[in-house]
Amino acid sequence: MSKPKVGVVGYGVIGQRLADGVALQEDMELVGVVDVAPTLSTRALCEAGMPYDLYVVEGEQKAAFDAAGIPVSGTMDDLLDKVDIVLDSSPGGVGRKNKEIYQARGVKAVFQGGEKNDIVDVFFHGYANYEKGVGKDYLKLTSCNTTGLIRAVDCLDREVGVERVMVTIVRRVADPGDTHRGLVDVAQVEPVPNHQAVDLMTIMPHIEATGLLVHVPTTHGHIINVCATTKSDISKERALELFEQHPRIRVVKIADGFNSNAALFRYARDLGNKRADMYDIAVFDETIAKSGREFMFAINIPQEAVVIPETTDAIRAALSMQTDRLEAVGLTNKYLGLA
Amino acid sequence: MSKPKVGVVGYGVIGQRLADGVALQEDMELVGVVDVAPTLSTRALCEAGMPYDLYVVEGEQKAAFDAAGIPVSGTMDDLLDKVDIVLDSSPGGVGRKNKEIYQARGVKAVFQGGEKNDIVDVFFHGYANYEKGVGKDYLKLTSCNTTGLIRAVDCLDREVGVERVMVTIVRRVADPGDTHRGLVDVAQVEPVPNHQAVDLMTIMPHIEATGLLVHVPTTHGHIINVCATTKSDISKERALELFEQHPRIRVVKIADGFNSNAALFRYARDLGNKRADMYDIAVFDETIAKSGREFMFAINIPQEAVVIPETTDAIRAALSMQTDRLEAVGLTNKYLGLA
Amino acid sequence: MSKPKVGVVGYGVIGQRLADGVALQEDMELVGVVDVAPTLSTRALCEAGMPYDLYVVEGEQKAAFDAAGIPVSGTMDDLLDKVDIVLDSSPGGVGRKNKEIYQARGVKAVFQGGEKNDIVDVFFHGYANYEKGVGKDYLKLTSCNTTGLIRAVDCLDREVGVERVMVTIVRRVADPGDTHRGLVDVAQVEPVPNHQAVDLMTIMPHIEATGLLVHVPTTHGHIINVCATTKSDISKERALELFEQHPRIRVVKIADGFNSNAALFRYARDLGNKRADMYDIAVFDETIAKSGREFMFAINIPQEAVVIPETTDAIRAALSMQTDRLEAVGLTNKYLGLA
Amino acid sequence: MSKPKVGVVGYGVIGQRLADGVALQEDMELVGVVDVAPTLSTRALCEAGMPYDLYVVEGEQKAAFDAAGIPVSGTMDDLLDKVDIVLDSSPGGVGRKNKEIYQARGVKAVFQGGEKNDIVDVFFHGYANYEKGVGKDYLKLTSCNTTGLIRAVDCLDREVGVERVMVTIVRRVADPGDTHRGLVDVAQVEPVPNHQAVDLMTIMPHIEATGLLVHVPTTHGHIINVCATTKSDISKERALELFEQHPRIRVVKIADGFNSNAALFRYARDLGNKRADMYDIAVFDETIAKSGREFMFAINIPQEAVVIPETTDAIRAALSMQTDRLEAVGLTNKYLGLA
Repeated sequence: MSKPKVGVVGYGVIGQRLADGVALQEDMELVGVVDVAPTLSTRALCEAGMPYDLYVVEGEQKAAFDAAGIPVSGTMDDLLDKVDIVLDSSPGGVGRKNKEIYQARGVKAVFQGGEKNDIVDVFFHGYANYEKGVGKDYLKLTSCNTTGLIRAVDCLDREVGVERVMVTIVRRVADPGDTHRGLVDVAQVEPVPNHQAVDLMTIMPHIEATGLLVHVPTTHGHIINVCATTKSDISKERALELFEQHPRIRVVKIADGFNSNAALFRYARDLGNKRADMYDIAVFDETIAKSGREFMFAINIPQEAVVIPETTDAIRAALSMQTDRLEAVGLTNKYLGLA
Repeated sequence: MSKPKVGVVGYGVIGQRLADGVALQEDMELVGVVDVAPTLSTRALCEAGMPYDLYVVEGEQKAAFDAAGIPVSGTMDDLLDKVDIVLDSSPGGVGRKNKEIYQARGVKAVFQGGEKNDIVDVFFHGYANYEKGVGKDYLKLTSCNTTGLIRAVDCLDREVGVERVMVTIVRRVADPGDTHRGLVDVAQVEPVPNHQAVDLMTIMPHIEATGLLVHVPTTHGHIINVCATTKSDISKERALELFEQHPRIRVVKIADGFNSNAALFRYARDLGNKRADMYDIAVFDETIAKSGREFMFAINIPQEAVVIPETTDAIRAALSMQTDRLEAVGLTNKYLGLA
Repeated sequence: MSKPKVGVVGYGVIGQRLADGVALQEDMELVGVVDVAPTLSTRALCEAGMPYDLYVVEGEQKAAFDAAGIPVSGTMDDLLDKVDIVLDSSPGGVGRKNKEIYQARGVKAVFQGGEKNDIVDVFFHGYANYEKGVGKDYLKLTSCNTTGLIRAVDCLDREVGVERVMVTIVRRVADPGDTHRGLVDVAQVEPVPNHQAVDLMTIMPHIEATGLLVHVPTTHGHIINVCATTKSDISKERALELFEQHPRIRVVKIADGFNSNAALFRYARDLGNKRADMYDIAVFDETIAKSGREFMFAINIPQEAVVIPETTDAIRAALSMQTDRLEAVGLTNKYLGLA
Repeated sequence: MSKPKVGVVGYGVIGQRLADGVALQEDMELVGVVDVAPTLSTRALCEAGMPYDLYVVEGEQKAAFDAAGIPVSGTMDDLLDKVDIVLDSSPGGVGRKNKEIYQARGVKAVFQGGEKNDIVDVFFHGYANYEKGVGKDYLKLTSCNTTGLIRAVDCLDREVGVERVMVTIVRRVADPGDTHRGLVDVAQVEPVPNHQAVDLMTIMPHIEATGLLVHVPTTHGHIINVCATTKSDISKERALELFEQHPRIRVVKIADGFNSNAALFRYARDLGNKRADMYDIAVFDETIAKSGREFMFAINIPQEAVVIPETTDAIRAALSMQTDRLEAVGLTNKYLGLA
């Protein structure tokens, strides 16, 4: 059997990384990426020698790419002829319109967190509810914060049961280089509950969740402080063991210099990781506290790349490449280099 | 009986505001303020026409003030001759050395949160433990975050009892205009527990507290998300009522535009408050959430002025001006214009 | 003769300060201010005891103010009945529409820099071209940066003649408390020339001007580095003398702690200035450099209040209260407390 | 003849990139790198599989690396036995002490901009004064800002002659991930002239230079606005041609999305460049302005990697690998992938 063929629609911050992630999966084939205009990302694709073929949504968009000297391989229609599934990382809201196109063409699709739940069959997280996605046509990933949060909560929940989580999300307000949004000298609060708590309850309905979201003027990763009420007791040592064994969680020590969201970003650069990315969330060792069955810990969410593994899991589920959860995430991890 | 005479040692961010606060108390007399060099604050004191007399610590410091055209009324020794109590807002650590001087002169003193607890007789908060300060010689105020946090927790605790608090402090990392410290594009985490939780337990030993502190690049007020476990149930409505009745707590709505630490700062400017200050902490109405006996809410701490009321209470306690807690804080509030 | 009657339309960041400024002019009467919805500014007006009467634009807007407990004195129509001139500080672009209303009512108006030049008779600066505004009906002020820049350039130009200026504007990108715009960890460049250079040439057509504008993530004042080519030689000492004698220019020393835009903001707070404002621009003494007839110096522009004096001058011009430039600005300065 | 052997002392932000740069030079051999304690950078070196051998300065420092599981190949003494030249990127000031060691061992060295000029034989820039470095024992590179600034000024100077430059440096105040320094909501000015102007005059003594430095709260590249007085006239078109032909200068258009220091950083990530680095400075096309013989343009300086090419040139000079300037820089460029 030939490898499943994958296309990426929307080659922005997330789209670039989805393409990278799929290209690393030895049991999938990345056919190409789609975008609408010469952006920094598509210019960089060109300067880097076109590692991925580029398609436009409408033929008339080709002229601008021609003027910028960026080769175009065809239209989205052409791409849809060749693929089994699309990873849609268009700007929030565009996915709804795109879905109609995919549906008309009989192509499956995985959407990102910016879309509404009602356009998909299942709201998906590779570790928490892989089984629900198997064989489905349209899946939506949790957002970056929720993806990382669920990784950590699911990890504890499978061991001791989690009844309730109250989270405080210190949210980076823009991505590096973004001039379209931002805050200066402001910590902005949102009404509770934040959507991440609501989304967590959708994926894990046995947990009661609420939380506060505070936007802060940083760009390198969200910090979430998690207060979890567990069903049975768990020691800090055991929790650390579980976190350390999780292929998508990295335990770090403040004492070693991992003292911030930006330290983790810098470390990804120091590692020489492509695009200075990190797939794994980090748990800060020295932030773990326990008070009865209340278990508190802080995590870092690298917003650009954190959803790549779970989105890749979604391809496996939608195409029924694996039906077993651990087998599926294990393959994704292996190809992404997550030990 | 003549009014108690008060001096302020250290005319920086806090010292200026302590002087303002004392000057407003009709039953006290501000004798003067002490500083060591021509700073922005003492230059402004001069440009504003010397509303407070200025003293130097050592006589030799006068030359620099002379050169800057700032009138000096004498030395700290001269000031200590005239006062019953000193509010010491020197840089952290200097208070220990100053205490020896005050002790030798038989002058009482109130220190700020930057000093160690061991130099004082009582670690003080006007609302939470006023009685412990009555008649004492050396008191230390809680820090800005702890002062505001205890106000809110004490307010709930007196109604329904609080067993545990887990807090997440989103801490402004520098004051406006500060070039000596700062963070750029970093959210920095500290090992738990933060000192604010430890300090809260010192003042309110029946409560178990822990918490995470995250430094963020803002200057206008700390945001604290409080998760409190109460002994008995309390409705959001009742809690709001209690907060609204508290003279040092302001309930605000995000929907009305009070959506951040900086919005409250801006509002203080809009009000025309001196130095753009606010004495009261704010509770953001829409951040109150309840899950069983877990009660969550977010507050804003205006770091420059929040300790002024409780420090003023400390004068009342140390000098036994009032022995009743509510009478004491009530007078402070009245003179500060806190309804 | 009775005092001229003034209304302020738009009670935001600028409008509040225009109202304050007019209220200080002993030879004018502030009739009231106009706004459309309960904002932080109008809520603060109410909490401060309604020092200014508030009018709505449309009667239907009253309900929202009623709900917020903010007293309304009537509609803009009512206000226009009572005033000789309006200071329009509506959001940029709204002034054009408002002008039709003012015109229909025969009321003069002064607009802010956010409007287009074509809606007015004269593009105005109190010091640089007061005479052009005398007796005119519709005037537009220069923007905050241009107002401050022209103050300094005009000051030199009247002494030695200025042929050319090349400026680099390090622009604060948002006001304190603003959550509608911002940048995080970005210094954003605009194509040259910036509008400030173009505007300077409109007001002072004998000068050739160009410049770069860089938006930076700060809120407390623009920094402009001015490279001026003078017609004849001027010493640093003479320039300092001129700047020091200018009632709307403050010379400060980095060595004294005035090392930044934020230090000047902090100083305004330390002074106890209402709203932490400053009307005068600052020249940083140690930034003055000379190379032949090239004269370089850096200034600070306090964006919220800098236009208040020149806007007040515009009232004097439009109503022909004074025909002499120095007499007019001198009266404005006197009432604003600018020595 | 065997390849020259190179060591890097100090494996921090600059040291990592120097090692990368030398490792790419096919006519040099990187022997190893030296550091004193397990930092994020040396931990990353280990997690990345030890692409470079690591040495400690003192044997006793090995224990900490052992505890962190980071393999150590020996001491700096051992490294110095094996190398012809050292690139010293120790913290500023340490180079002076290290020089004595290198001198005693007869090893040449290239220091970074944080050291004083008096410890070296020549203050060096690959493009501007390569010839002066040939055969010298101790060289010091210009700092990051000066290196980039001189690239651009030298490029113009060789064509039309430059008499004077007045620069405004909008300086990023910390590197990404740095928690040891920073500014919040402050644009801080330094007394003129900045050291970059002074350094430029040291390297290019025929030019009169001055300039203002403004520290701003960003981390991703300095922006310099250059006002140059040229000896003869140069058109914008010709200047663009020269900049475009320069292998270490990149011309970018704001209209294409290259609108900030951070956009260039993002672009380096999008390109997949190691550590998200860029060796070339950028000239923003739309910032070029001309007024008589005054020529204005803005450049972006990627502070982490900009000095790598010129430091590599310094190896070539010190070891007399090439005596011709263009041959030397051409080889450096070729191996670094600079067209």
